[in-house]
Amino acid sequence: MGGHMATNLAQGGFDVRLFDKFPDRVDQVRKEAGVELSTRLVRMNSLKELLDDDCLSAVITMLPSSPQVLEVYGTQSNDSGLIAMARKNTLFIDCTTGDPKVAEEVHAYASSKRCAFVDAPVSGGVPAAQQATLTFMVGGSAETVSQATPLLQAMGKQVFHCGPVGTGLAAKICNNMLLAVSMIAVSEVMDLGRRLGLDPHVLSKIINSSSGRCWSSEVYNPVPGILPNVPSSKGYVGGFGVALMTKDLGLAQQASTMTGCPTPLGSVAHQLYRILCQSGYAQKDFSSIYQFLSKSL
Amino acid sequence: MGGHMATNLAQGGFDVRLFDKFPDRVDQVRKEAGVELSTRLVRMNSLKELLDDDCLSAVITMLPSSPQVLEVYGTQSNDSGLIAMARKNTLFIDCTTGDPKVAEEVHAYASSKRCAFVDAPVSGGVPAAQQATLTFMVGGSAETVSQATPLLQAMGKQVFHCGPVGTGLAAKICNNMLLAVSMIAVSEVMDLGRRLGLDPHVLSKIINSSSGRCWSSEVYNPVPGILPNVPSSKGYVGGFGVALMTKDLGLAQQASTMTGCPTPLGSVAHQLYRILCQSGYAQKDFSSIYQFLSKSL
Amino acid sequence: MGGHMATNLAQGGFDVRLFDKFPDRVDQVRKEAGVELSTRLVRMNSLKELLDDDCLSAVITMLPSSPQVLEVYGTQSNDSGLIAMARKNTLFIDCTTGDPKVAEEVHAYASSKRCAFVDAPVSGGVPAAQQATLTFMVGGSAETVSQATPLLQAMGKQVFHCGPVGTGLAAKICNNMLLAVSMIAVSEVMDLGRRLGLDPHVLSKIINSSSGRCWSSEVYNPVPGILPNVPSSKGYVGGFGVALMTKDLGLAQQASTMTGCPTPLGSVAHQLYRILCQSGYAQKDFSSIYQFLSKSL
Amino acid sequence: MGGHMATNLAQGGFDVRLFDKFPDRVDQVRKEAGVELSTRLVRMNSLKELLDDDCLSAVITMLPSSPQVLEVYGTQSNDSGLIAMARKNTLFIDCTTGDPKVAEEVHAYASSKRCAFVDAPVSGGVPAAQQATLTFMVGGSAETVSQATPLLQAMGKQVFHCGPVGTGLAAKICNNMLLAVSMIAVSEVMDLGRRLGLDPHVLSKIINSSSGRCWSSEVYNPVPGILPNVPSSKGYVGGFGVALMTKDLGLAQQASTMTGCPTPLGSVAHQLYRILCQSGYAQKDFSSIYQFLSKSL
Repeated sequence: MGGHMATNLAQGGFDVRLFDKFPDRVDQVRKEAGVELSTRLVRMNSLKELLDDDCLSAVITMLPSSPQVLEVYGTQSNDSGLIAMARKNTLFIDCTTGDPKVAEEVHAYASSKRCAFVDAPVSGGVPAAQQATLTFMVGGSAETVSQATPLLQAMGKQVFHCGPVGTGLAAKICNNMLLAVSMIAVSEVMDLGRRLGLDPHVLSKIINSSSGRCWSSEVYNPVPGILPNVPSSKGYVGGFGVALMTKDLGLAQQASTMTGCPTPLGSVAHQLYRILCQSGYAQKDFSSIYQFLSKSL
Repeated sequence: MGGHMATNLAQGGFDVRLFDKFPDRVDQVRKEAGVELSTRLVRMNSLKELLDDDCLSAVITMLPSSPQVLEVYGTQSNDSGLIAMARKNTLFIDCTTGDPKVAEEVHAYASSKRCAFVDAPVSGGVPAAQQATLTFMVGGSAETVSQATPLLQAMGKQVFHCGPVGTGLAAKICNNMLLAVSMIAVSEVMDLGRRLGLDPHVLSKIINSSSGRCWSSEVYNPVPGILPNVPSSKGYVGGFGVALMTKDLGLAQQASTMTGCPTPLGSVAHQLYRILCQSGYAQKDFSSIYQFLSKSL
Repeated sequence: MGGHMATNLAQGGFDVRLFDKFPDRVDQVRKEAGVELSTRLVRMNSLKELLDDDCLSAVITMLPSSPQVLEVYGTQSNDSGLIAMARKNTLFIDCTTGDPKVAEEVHAYASSKRCAFVDAPVSGGVPAAQQATLTFMVGGSAETVSQATPLLQAMGKQVFHCGPVGTGLAAKICNNMLLAVSMIAVSEVMDLGRRLGLDPHVLSKIINSSSGRCWSSEVYNPVPGILPNVPSSKGYVGGFGVALMTKDLGLAQQASTMTGCPTPLGSVAHQLYRILCQSGYAQKDFSSIYQFLSKSL
Repeated sequence: MGGHMATNLAQGGFDVRLFDKFPDRVDQVRKEAGVELSTRLVRMNSLKELLDDDCLSAVITMLPSSPQVLEVYGTQSNDSGLIAMARKNTLFIDCTTGDPKVAEEVHAYASSKRCAFVDAPVSGGVPAAQQATLTFMVGGSAETVSQATPLLQAMGKQVFHCGPVGTGLAAKICNNMLLAVSMIAVSEVMDLGRRLGLDPHVLSKIINSSSGRCWSSEVYNPVPGILPNVPSSKGYVGGFGVALMTKDLGLAQQASTMTGCPTPLGSVAHQLYRILCQSGYAQKDFSSIYQFLSKSL
């Protein structure tokens, strides 16, 4: 994912310095980018080297989740990370999907060192990263976000300024929780309809022109054979995996608990995807909930 | 609702015979229809009189729920209803939202008396009934449905032939269960987003251009002030009431139990609306779940 | 089950007339009862023959569920069953687990024919039927219940008079719903404790002397090896099957819907057992929910 | 709570040094303990003074939750707390109900400073603290736990050694999650039974001698008037508050998410108590879920 994003930045005319714990990955990205572009994709041997670069205008990170963000950026009481190494006025753009509270914490620490920070999680997955059609949900001050925008636009199609730091992540986990619930609900009714004698094509058509209409029924139908190029029609391979969706639902539940927000359906959705994780579906697309709920033995 | 439908039939050139347990209602419909149209809206004093009419081509019923359908139509072992009184070849169109199994039972009984039957529940509510823009989901044989279609088209905009008798109702309860789940989930994330510092206008805009997009967020947003003419912006008055939604979710659960279909989210949605019913929300619009979940004391 | 109950009646000094759709079953019961007892266990060739017996004082039925009750007893509009054949003052004792409303309906019909009726569902399963230690939950008038009591005492250990007709069934489905929820909750915490490093023996001991204590943790622990003679320690074979528990939870949900009673946990328990049914657990003991939730692949 | 525990320690012959952020509270405890005992209850003016005491053998803490534990004990990267001030071999006993992971973290830090640590959450509430009948669930090495035991026995009736550090908390949150689910389920069936015509005294009696039997039905019945001295019979005042139960359920959900453990009923129970919190029940006893679910308007 990060590789495609870097390549699109280079394509957009930016000089990119790349660092990965596994240097081979950087080499692979440079190779795939082709001879010409790879001149703008320079491999760094350490974060130190990267942050010392005189021309550095912004640092973009894309990490597994919040614990890695804390480790890589460092904290007030553990100042051995990116922020401790950075010069004043460095702009940090973190594209990781994680806990909004952690983004706020990193932002406070960055501010104390006179650095700027935005949370800018993405949606669209690997295909959108490749085609530079990602959606960015960005949290930060108006000034910082407008500074980050040209970079984000080189990698994506839409850039939403959501509010202060943390709200980019808030928007992402809200959207994904709604998506998970919709997908399960579409699966439930498609299965119920089938058992009541409805042709799934007919039921999809009716739903899509009625008040049940949603992205999961129209664009990503979980029943095999309804739509041609979606994971459900290709053995639930590819797409957005059950394990990743489970992680995002965990973030939503954490935020709900922290704010005392009742989210009964979000919570049951979380539990169902957790059950899927240990029933052999962890690596399948998240629309495989249909397969799980409708299977007969 | 029935009054608007009858008036639209008359408007469409059909001669309509009206019967209601409360004759005043018929008079009211005739009065509202105006002098000219009311000539085609004739009040019947009994069901017997209605069914004896030589010109009768079809009978349309719109009743509270399945128990009333069984009572009005009669059954094999209690043949004192509409079907027992009807001449051969009478076409019955039942627009009640009820149990698909009951529709199948009435259909079997009607067939034994050489009458035709379709289940044709509607969506769109009173405004659509008034403007003749209802959606009909029809279950029945191809022949019977095509016989019913001109009548339905005089009252609505879309007529879906769903499959055999019972599938019209199946489609209706599937759609409404999906709608209920979506509405609750939109309410949960709008509330969670707010607590995390997101402006609800911004969050709605992001969701509506992302994978969380659904009818409940785009067309019927439950947060007051997001959309101008929806119940949430008018004190949750009007629209589709919590009590009615609870009834439809009960039908969906009954169908799920009968077919052994797992519907975890549908079932929790049902319970939540039931809790609303006894928390003072029974007559409010079903989007008031947002108010219930987000209220602070 | 019925066979053991009949044998215990004979053992208690009652003359028993037996009818089963499959006469071989009656022969089997007589054979297992031994030469002496079998003289008090007479096979009837039809229900007619049984009801015509001059000495008949009570009829005891044990059927799969409510539809069979309606079929066997008959109804006002279909008077071809037991009640239509019975003499005045016959006492009917129905031990079926079914819908309380159906019991009320059969009772009303029986009353109209001057017959008495009680619903008397049992708990304890096959072992208790064999050892005459069943618990009977009885619904009916005080007079009728006291008439039925000597018969029930010959087959069981406890007889609870719950209230009017239907309340025996109400008590049974309430208890079983509570049992299902407790069993799932014990399974959840035993699994969570294990993952947090707790020895299941230690956790069980703590729970059983604390406020989490319940029959499912003390007497029927779902974790293999905690208690010696329970299904969980014998491969989840025997005991009370998942399919039967699912049926009882369906009755509880039907009653909840009818009375508008919110039962969120009962409803989720129902859904989980339904998921188990189609995941290969239908015939296992209902404590196998632990195995389902805790399995790793 | 801490005051009662300190008084019981003094009663047991221990010399107690007391520190509280609010010194008045210490004075209050000393006053209530009486002249004689108060000689063994000495007020400390700072944590420093307390830890410097030559005779110090153990430090017992009782804090609101995990964030306060981290603050008071300190961490590897923020070594300004109790552990940083302590001499080698000090024994820390933390009675706070919090996150098992935090206990493990504090333990690791304490070990690195050659101090001992156990987590020892309690159950029984204020009455048990007063009467020295608390139950302690203790996590730590066998040696450390046996060192702590005499102190715990002066304050409670039962001391369970659950396993390594963190398992005391694990046992506590498992028990409380099971308790919450049981209480809600008892409330659901008591309400359902009532609506089906059952006398709540009769239903309680049946449940308590059947497989639905649990602490919540036998000892702490949520229906007013069934048991004499429980919160439900005293307006749901006193007992274990909804807000505290909600907090414990949050800890259970956090642990479930961390370990990937499916806890569907625990999660719905959490949501229901969260809904109660913002419906005006936060300070009522947790058995008030019965009132919430059964209320009619």
